[in-house]
Amino acid sequence: MMKVVVVGGVAGGATAASQLRRLEPDCDITIFEKGRDISFANCGLPYHIGGEVAERGQLIAATPETFGKKDVRVHTDHEVIGVHPGGHRLTVKNLETGEVFEESYDRLILSPGGRPRIIPALEGVTAVHVLHTLEDMDRIMKFIDDEDIKEAVVVGSGFIGMEVTENLRMRDIDVTLVHRNENLYGHVEAEMVAPLLQTLEDQGVNLKLNAEISRVEDGCAHLTNNEKIPAPMIIQGIGLTPNTGFLRGSGVRVTDDGLIPVNEYGQTNVDNVYALGDVMETKYLHVPDVAANIKLAWPAHRMAYTIANHIHGAYDIKFEGLLGTNIMRFFDHEIGSIGLEQKDVRGIDHFVIDHQQNFKAGYMEGASKIRIKMYVGHDGTILRAALISKSGVDKRLDTLAAHIRTGGKAQDLINIEVAYSPPFSSPKSFLNMVGYKAVEEMKKRGLY
Amino acid sequence: MMKVVVVGGVAGGATAASQLRRLEPDCDITIFEKGRDISFANCGLPYHIGGEVAERGQLIAATPETFGKKDVRVHTDHEVIGVHPGGHRLTVKNLETGEVFEESYDRLILSPGGRPRIIPALEGVTAVHVLHTLEDMDRIMKFIDDEDIKEAVVVGSGFIGMEVTENLRMRDIDVTLVHRNENLYGHVEAEMVAPLLQTLEDQGVNLKLNAEISRVEDGCAHLTNNEKIPAPMIIQGIGLTPNTGFLRGSGVRVTDDGLIPVNEYGQTNVDNVYALGDVMETKYLHVPDVAANIKLAWPAHRMAYTIANHIHGAYDIKFEGLLGTNIMRFFDHEIGSIGLEQKDVRGIDHFVIDHQQNFKAGYMEGASKIRIKMYVGHDGTILRAALISKSGVDKRLDTLAAHIRTGGKAQDLINIEVAYSPPFSSPKSFLNMVGYKAVEEMKKRGLY
Repeated sequence: MMKVVVVGGVAGGATAASQLRRLEPDCDITIFEKGRDISFANCGLPYHIGGEVAERGQLIAATPETFGKKDVRVHTDHEVIGVHPGGHRLTVKNLETGEVFEESYDRLILSPGGRPRIIPALEGVTAVHVLHTLEDMDRIMKFIDDEDIKEAVVVGSGFIGMEVTENLRMRDIDVTLVHRNENLYGHVEAEMVAPLLQTLEDQGVNLKLNAEISRVEDGCAHLTNNEKIPAPMIIQGIGLTPNTGFLRGSGVRVTDDGLIPVNEYGQTNVDNVYALGDVMETKYLHVPDVAANIKLAWPAHRMAYTIANHIHGAYDIKFEGLLGTNIMRFFDHEIGSIGLEQKDVRGIDHFVIDHQQNFKAGYMEGASKIRIKMYVGHDGTILRAALISKSGVDKRLDTLAAHIRTGGKAQDLINIEVAYSPPFSSPKSFLNMVGYKAVEEMKKRGLY
Repeated sequence: MMKVVVVGGVAGGATAASQLRRLEPDCDITIFEKGRDISFANCGLPYHIGGEVAERGQLIAATPETFGKKDVRVHTDHEVIGVHPGGHRLTVKNLETGEVFEESYDRLILSPGGRPRIIPALEGVTAVHVLHTLEDMDRIMKFIDDEDIKEAVVVGSGFIGMEVTENLRMRDIDVTLVHRNENLYGHVEAEMVAPLLQTLEDQGVNLKLNAEISRVEDGCAHLTNNEKIPAPMIIQGIGLTPNTGFLRGSGVRVTDDGLIPVNEYGQTNVDNVYALGDVMETKYLHVPDVAANIKLAWPAHRMAYTIANHIHGAYDIKFEGLLGTNIMRFFDHEIGSIGLEQKDVRGIDHFVIDHQQNFKAGYMEGASKIRIKMYVGHDGTILRAALISKSGVDKRLDTLAAHIRTGGKAQDLINIEVAYSPPFSSPKSFLNMVGYKAVEEMKKRGLY
């Protein structure tokens, strides 16, 4: 009987195990998870703090018990500390007892994820929290209650920093948001985030750009700009460090950034060893020579399905590469992007379409602008697009994703038929207009 | 100098004239419109009755004066009553003076639209209205005020009937909705409209299915089921009759249904004569052997652009055919479809995927179901899909449109990357799940 071991039991690992069980009713599946919980909805954690997710239990998709019923063994508080592909063996540490033991595998699926980065000045400070696991969320909510928190400092303005800011405000907690450079929400172009800055102001958030915390003393955070602010609670969201140290010496290739390169089946460089989730390095679907590491749920779920099928022997299911589609709601705004990161676009010849119009018929109550900044390669490839609006950003991103995936170019956007009715769009629809502008620009440049 | 005459100055005709002027600064352009107004937003008319369009003026995109500034001559209240392609001439009647005259053209663009059908029992009855033009809207709003209307009868449950029902309710006018068969809102499958029926009930709308008005007497409508209901105002929305009678004997081909077949450039069978808008018969993009007549704004605008380019000599711009993408908001629901009509699907071998899941992460406040019924041909062609939900129907329709347009099949839906965050979707996203179900079904049937 084939024995499959999964390292990591959150989004990627748990989904891979479920998919595999569905395809292979008989194989032996074991999950080792170093944390307390498995299979929780980490994207939903900020929203339970703010109350938009009413019940904590709704965040838990599966437990070791529910997996047990599917005959998948789950060991939580078990950290895999070594991999020995030659002997098809792992070294595992039971974090509760300290016991170290060996385990064999026929197929190994690596989904160890990352751990939140913590700046040195904040290490070991009681008031400092991160929000990466259900345990972290529980700890934050208990801390808010126990310490009767009325104000907090949020460090970092990525997905976590912004979502935590929104949800603390939902609890009427005053927030100081500290971000190390001048670009709030760096996933999207600095020149597009004015509505987020305005919202922060409207929400009474104390924004500190170009600042970092240098130390915490007597309940106050000292910033690098010499400001001192009350900080009874600090939540840090400044990115993840991949949990791939345990692969040292294993022969599994890990990049300088700690990521694991995989191919279209999720295979690493080592036979029978797969990787997925936040640690995987794959490629962009539309610009395959650029490597992609997208720490989001969709790529993890898609690769889980791909790996399960490959182990099952269904080689027709391939991971096509990613578009990096992402979105965030921040109070009454939606902001997101698709395609390469800003830094990657700089290396490729391109022109930019910057367009805005109403997200629905302009004569309808509540109409307001949607804006796109789209980067187009000289053959019409949509390298990247960033969007912001009060509504309809998700629709345009998903439409662009479908369009780009099947080879659609910027000049083809004129042809996308839209579901039009005044509450939803315009007959001269947003992406069509972007396409018309692209055609004009390409003609002007002799590219069309 | 090339002389272009446009018959009809609403969506299709006005857009064609504008686009042509943009491309051809020097040609001679004349529009004949038999109605009082040109270039108004007919899709927005119901929403001004209900107040969601606050200002009447917002519904008017252009006037004869604004066209005059672009050197486009507009003659309203002028009906074209004959076309003589041999001599490149038209016969035009000035409806104000009764004068009949001839006009020459080098290129002729036909966008005469349709006129609302009226059942014989209602012809000439003062209380009876239709809602097709700005004049109609003005008449309805004046009638409501003058007669102090508190209750009304709406006949027909298509786009107009449903939108008028919603907007009369917004004004607190009691509505009886009369529909001739048992299928409310026939654009979508009868088995999917339960939420609309529930909404009608919640809104206190008096629904009469399988009924027609046989006569109106003493302010009451007598129904074919022998019921008698108060009817101080009646608004009829039971479809359009194409205004193509004036083409009789012209040599321009008109189908038995009164439609004008056109090719990918909008050309009719007669040289230098184009047609667009509600009267054009084109084909479905994804099933080209099925003729399409889609009386919606997007096709009209797209064909206007195509025709203008063709007259300009840009033959690379083609009308690819239609997908029939349509959507309606009805109070807090969204409902729409894409692809062939139900009747057309019956003639093609297919299977059906009927799927529902939450339109956003299920643990988020306000999550509820989105349902799709998708008809798949045996090669995976998405023949038709109908959707209903409280949110996100437009997003899925536009995404499907982009996907189908570039050749995407049902089994490829698993690969569409989505903009995921809990307020917007799920990592196991709706269209992906539909794709997984399609793959399973195709495997089961030996089609994959």
